[in-house]
Amino acid sequence: MITIYAVSDSIGETAELVSVASSCQFNEDINVIRTPYIKTFDDVEDFIKNIKIKQDCIVISTIVLSDVREFLIQRCIENNITIINILSPIINVLSSKLHKTPVYSPGAVWKMDEDYFKRIEAMEFALQYDDSKDLRGLKNADIILVGLSRTSKTPLSLYLANKGYKTINIPLVPEIPVPDELFSIDKKKIFGLTINPLNLIDIRKHRMDKFSLPHIEFSYSNEERILEELEYSDKVMRKLGCKTIDVTSRALEDTALIISKYLNF
Amino acid sequence: MITIYAVSDSIGETAELVSVASSCQFNEDINVIRTPYIKTFDDVEDFIKNIKIKQDCIVISTIVLSDVREFLIQRCIENNITIINILSPIINVLSSKLHKTPVYSPGAVWKMDEDYFKRIEAMEFALQYDDSKDLRGLKNADIILVGLSRTSKTPLSLYLANKGYKTINIPLVPEIPVPDELFSIDKKKIFGLTINPLNLIDIRKHRMDKFSLPHIEFSYSNEERILEELEYSDKVMRKLGCKTIDVTSRALEDTALIISKYLNF
Repeated sequence: MITIYAVSDSIGETAELVSVASSCQFNEDINVIRTPYIKTFDDVEDFIKNIKIKQDCIVISTIVLSDVREFLIQRCIENNITIINILSPIINVLSSKLHKTPVYSPGAVWKMDEDYFKRIEAMEFALQYDDSKDLRGLKNADIILVGLSRTSKTPLSLYLANKGYKTINIPLVPEIPVPDELFSIDKKKIFGLTINPLNLIDIRKHRMDKFSLPHIEFSYSNEERILEELEYSDKVMRKLGCKTIDVTSRALEDTALIISKYLNF
Repeated sequence: MITIYAVSDSIGETAELVSVASSCQFNEDINVIRTPYIKTFDDVEDFIKNIKIKQDCIVISTIVLSDVREFLIQRCIENNITIINILSPIINVLSSKLHKTPVYSPGAVWKMDEDYFKRIEAMEFALQYDDSKDLRGLKNADIILVGLSRTSKTPLSLYLANKGYKTINIPLVPEIPVPDELFSIDKKKIFGLTINPLNLIDIRKHRMDKFSLPHIEFSYSNEERILEELEYSDKVMRKLGCKTIDVTSRALEDTALIISKYLNF
C-alpha cells in the first residue's frame, strides 16, 4: 500500500487536505499520515529515519520555513523518496509579483485573528440558538435555515458556524406556527431546505429503526404525513419568499457554498 | 492588489485553503476569490473573460478533469496569466506508483460516504449533549472535554464534531459535583482544558462587558473566585487522571490536533 506523508511545520491541515483530495482520485487504499510540527533539521532527520518502506511513499510538504523545507527536499532525494512541495511555488510567484520576501511563518493561516474569534462566536451562537428554543438571536443571525425535520438544518448550521457565519435554524412543523419575527427579517438571509419526498421517507425510517421507535404509533415516517409536511413547508417558504435549496443527495459543503455565494460572503 | 483565483471543478475548498495559506506568508492584502464548478470549456472561457486585470492575478487550480485542466492552462498562457496546478503533480506520481489511471472525478473528496455520515452524526451528538444537560451520551463519546467556563470547551467540541469525533463537554463548577459516571470512563478519552489565570480573568471580563453583566454582584470574573475555580479544576483533573492541555493562546485546530494525535485517530 502507498503511504502519503502530509508534512508541515504547522498543524498539517492543508497538507492533509491536498493529500486526501489527490488520493480520492484512485479507487485504492492510500494511507495518508499527517506529520505536523516539522520545524527543525532534527525533526526532518527523525521523520526520514521513521519512514519504513521508502519506495512506497510520497512526501507532500507545506513547510514554509525555507531552510527546513530545502533540507527535507535534500534528504528525500538522497533517500530516493518522491517529494512534492505545495505552497512554495505559489509563495515564490507571490513574492516576485509583490516584490516582497515572505514572512516564513509556520501556521500563519491558523493565527488567532479577528476571523478566528468570529468563528468561535458563530459556533457559540449556533449552539445557543439551535432548534429555535430562543428566538432572540434571529435579528443577529447572518443566515436563517428553515426546513422540516431531517433536512440537515442542524449539521449545516454547525458547518456554517465553523466557517464563521452566525446561523440559526427554525424547524417547520405543521402544528407549530413559525415565529412572526421571521417575516420581518431580510428574506435574503433566509434559506428554505427542501428534499425529495422518497428520500425524506427513507431517512426518517432509517432513523426510527436506529432508535427503535415504535412504527405504528408514530406519524414521523408515515408517508401521508410526510407529504402533508412537505406541502406545509412549501407553503411557508413561498410565503417567506426565501431562496430554497434542494438538499437531496447534496453534501453539506455544497449547500454551504450555494448559501455563501448567494450572500456574497 | 493581487488577486488569487482558487479554481476548482468541485466546491473549491482545497484550492481556497492552499491559496489562503500561501497569501498568509505576506503582510499584504491579497484577495482570494473562490471559483467553484469550472467543469467545461465554456466555464473556462467565461472565467477567463471575467478576469479584469490579468497581470495582477494568479490562478491556483485543483481541477481534476484533465481536458478542462489542460484547456485552462492553455487559455491562461495565451492571456499571460500565471497558473499553478495543485493536485495534478501528486495525482501523476500516484498514478505511476500505482500503475493506475485516476478516476478524474471532481469533488471525490466531498463524497457522501461513511466518513461523511459519521461527521453528521458527530455534529448531532455534540449538540445533543452540549454542556452536560444529559449524560447518557458519556459512554458513546469518543472524546470528553472537562474545564472551567470559558476554556473553549464548546467551540472545541463543535470543531471536533466537524472532524467526525463524537465529543461531549462537562463544565467544571465548584458548586456542582462532576457526574460519578465520569470516573468509570476510560480516562484516555478525557481531556482537561487548563488556562493561565490572567488570561481567564481577561476573557471573562471581556465577556461581561459585552453582555453588560453587572460587575459587582457577579463572581464570574472576580479574581479570587477564578483562582478558587482553577484550584478546583486542577483537583478534579488530577482525580480523573486525565491528560491536560493548556489552551492559553492556543488555536482550536492546534488543541484538536493534540487530542487526535493522543488518541491515534
